[in-house]
Amino acid sequence: MTRLVGIDLGGTWIRAALATGPAQHGVIIHRPTPAQAGPEAVLRVCAEAALEASGGETPDGIAIGIPGPLDPRTGVVYAAPHLAGWEGVNARDRLRETTGCEVAIANDANLAGFAEWTAGAGRGTSHFVFLTVSTGIGAALILRGILQLGAAGTAGEVGHSFTGLSGPRCGQGHRGCLEGIASGTAIAQRAQAALAEGVESRLRGHSHPSAADVQRAAEDGDELGVRLYSEAGAALGHVLGGLINVLSPEVIAIGGGLIAAGRLLFETMNSSIAEMAFEAPRARCRIVPAELGTDAGLVGAVAWAQQQHGHG
Amino acid sequence: MTRLVGIDLGGTWIRAALATGPAQHGVIIHRPTPAQAGPEAVLRVCAEAALEASGGETPDGIAIGIPGPLDPRTGVVYAAPHLAGWEGVNARDRLRETTGCEVAIANDANLAGFAEWTAGAGRGTSHFVFLTVSTGIGAALILRGILQLGAAGTAGEVGHSFTGLSGPRCGQGHRGCLEGIASGTAIAQRAQAALAEGVESRLRGHSHPSAADVQRAAEDGDELGVRLYSEAGAALGHVLGGLINVLSPEVIAIGGGLIAAGRLLFETMNSSIAEMAFEAPRARCRIVPAELGTDAGLVGAVAWAQQQHGHG
Repeated sequence: MTRLVGIDLGGTWIRAALATGPAQHGVIIHRPTPAQAGPEAVLRVCAEAALEASGGETPDGIAIGIPGPLDPRTGVVYAAPHLAGWEGVNARDRLRETTGCEVAIANDANLAGFAEWTAGAGRGTSHFVFLTVSTGIGAALILRGILQLGAAGTAGEVGHSFTGLSGPRCGQGHRGCLEGIASGTAIAQRAQAALAEGVESRLRGHSHPSAADVQRAAEDGDELGVRLYSEAGAALGHVLGGLINVLSPEVIAIGGGLIAAGRLLFETMNSSIAEMAFEAPRARCRIVPAELGTDAGLVGAVAWAQQQHGHG
Repeated sequence: MTRLVGIDLGGTWIRAALATGPAQHGVIIHRPTPAQAGPEAVLRVCAEAALEASGGETPDGIAIGIPGPLDPRTGVVYAAPHLAGWEGVNARDRLRETTGCEVAIANDANLAGFAEWTAGAGRGTSHFVFLTVSTGIGAALILRGILQLGAAGTAGEVGHSFTGLSGPRCGQGHRGCLEGIASGTAIAQRAQAALAEGVESRLRGHSHPSAADVQRAAEDGDELGVRLYSEAGAALGHVLGGLINVLSPEVIAIGGGLIAAGRLLFETMNSSIAEMAFEAPRARCRIVPAELGTDAGLVGAVAWAQQQHGHG
């Protein structure tokens, strides 16, 4: 039997598991990520976790999700914001040398989207968009049943679409992009900036309110909190409305921590979508919650290992 | 030999030609479009033009480009703004009945993009975006060598992406979309609105300045003209920068009358792209002028006839 392992490399945890069926896996091996120790150290821990997940035998193939833009075809990671020293590293070749087996690398949000398409909210569709709205905004496009990589391998960065709002720059330095308005980081930063400007709010006690703090305040009717979530929702809706015009997906699945805000986010999101999208593609597009939660990245890595290295 | 005909149905002219090779065609048959007479009359003229293009023999297959959103798979045209009475018409089945041969329908901008990909600025690429900036803004996406239609058949409407600018609504009623800022219609309307508000400009003599009038004024240093083109360019750049992040195309080809404005449009476009796009996909994307001019629609219909009905 072919032994295939999926790895989800996060800023805090490395998780590995053996594939046991289509998008199914065995026991999850957890290891803390030595995020500051450089790629060599991180990939060594990945290799150990893979070996343990595989029951002590060298796996036949590995797929690993990495949190940053990268090119799956060359194996090169362009950058990984939460990991030190990964700029321009060929993670595929290095992990192949360390483990002695075939390796496929992919962006973590792309794999989470691939998991939702294989076993979650996108099952059975041909045209699928996945969006995770959390600290940052990740995404994946599956069109005609194919995960889209584009020429540079980086396709799917819906979070870096233009919104027209002059928020703070996003973590990647773009001005006016979705991640700079609608991510958890952006909501927290915008709340802090508003407090520093003296805006009235029941958040005033917090020195560094989080997006969750802003959500709780909004639920209690705080005007600033309600405004920040409703602007985030409107920006999401404008971008998704445009994306419906550009791609006409059957399903857009939205996951990530911020969807806990519910109506605070989705009311303006839905009205902005209605404002932007043509009727025909809008009528054919369902917008649904993602189904696999925080497991999506690992499930995606396992499914991707099966897709890339053959079914065991 | 298989006789395949391409038809370009425009608001003013119907043009038909016989395929004579890959993206090549014989003599072009022109007929005025009876745009106000309804789909029955228009499709009858299309059938006559096709028969003449085919040398009097019933063709074996036809592909026709239609100016409006439609679903190539069902054959239904959702709307065609420049033609009366086309809402919900099954143009494919009706033209099939009239001509007695196989018919494929497609959006006109999709076919122009398919032509550029087959025989113009997108030759040899796998990931290609075509944009035509003219009265309206049309587009086509070819990803992994496949013209993208999406679930509703309408994919590719890049002109209806969000720009954040509060221009006039576009022809389809969307607020803040690219077509409402950067199309020829939008530039003309915005100039008129500015004049009505009393803005100083050498356009003041014109009661209804066209986009070309605004361009000429801008070339002579008129502040209003320069501003309208530079805002249009910035909006184009913000949308294209986001699209580079989302799709990572190898080539974006831009055609249509407005590209005559040159630097007036492209300077702000390029700086907005640089502001929005990640370095890796931007470095892999060439932005070039389209090559086939106003023939692109007909060349695309001929190439599409060959693609859909087999090579003769």
